[in-house]
Amino acid sequence: MPTIVVEVMPKAELLDPQGKAVAGALQRLGKSEFTSVRIGKRFELTVDGPVDDSVLADVRDIAQTLLSNGVIEDVVAIRTEDAE
Amino acid sequence: MPTIVVEVMPKAELLDPQGKAVAGALQRLGKSEFTSVRIGKRFELTVDGPVDDSVLADVRDIAQTLLSNGVIEDVVAIRTEDAE
Repeated sequence: MPTIVVEVMPKAELLDPQGKAVAGALQRLGKSEFTSVRIGKRFELTVDGPVDDSVLADVRDIAQTLLSNGVIEDVVAIRTEDAE
Repeated sequence: MPTIVVEVMPKAELLDPQGKAVAGALQRLGKSEFTSVRIGKRFELTVDGPVDDSVLADVRDIAQTLLSNGVIEDVVAIRTEDAE
């Protein structure tokens, strides 16, 4: 069945304490080539049936309303992955 | 600066209670075309300098050790995004 992937990241202007913690850990490990880390979410929605325009419109709506908080997060990608 | 995206998902054989909650909400909203939802993480690592093989090897190592818990999660994708 096809899977639709929705990716959500914290807005660029907001602090991301989780990401900061990982970036700090990388510095302590000597991996100084990584200057910043941000952590967001990845949703996999399994669709029963074909992915047509109406399903994609539904997903865009769901991504904005249910999967992300528009005050602090941006939906950065919505893409369809090959059927399994 | 180039950004490397690392995507981590809970292993397929594990329950994902957060995803189940979202799937339940979709059913209640009448979006019955979505049969399951799984929720993972998306990391953006900003790299200072070019992304060469040694940086990518470092990222693969970090993804397995620091960004994911191999007991319950899989690293599903590592990709480089265009410089900003």
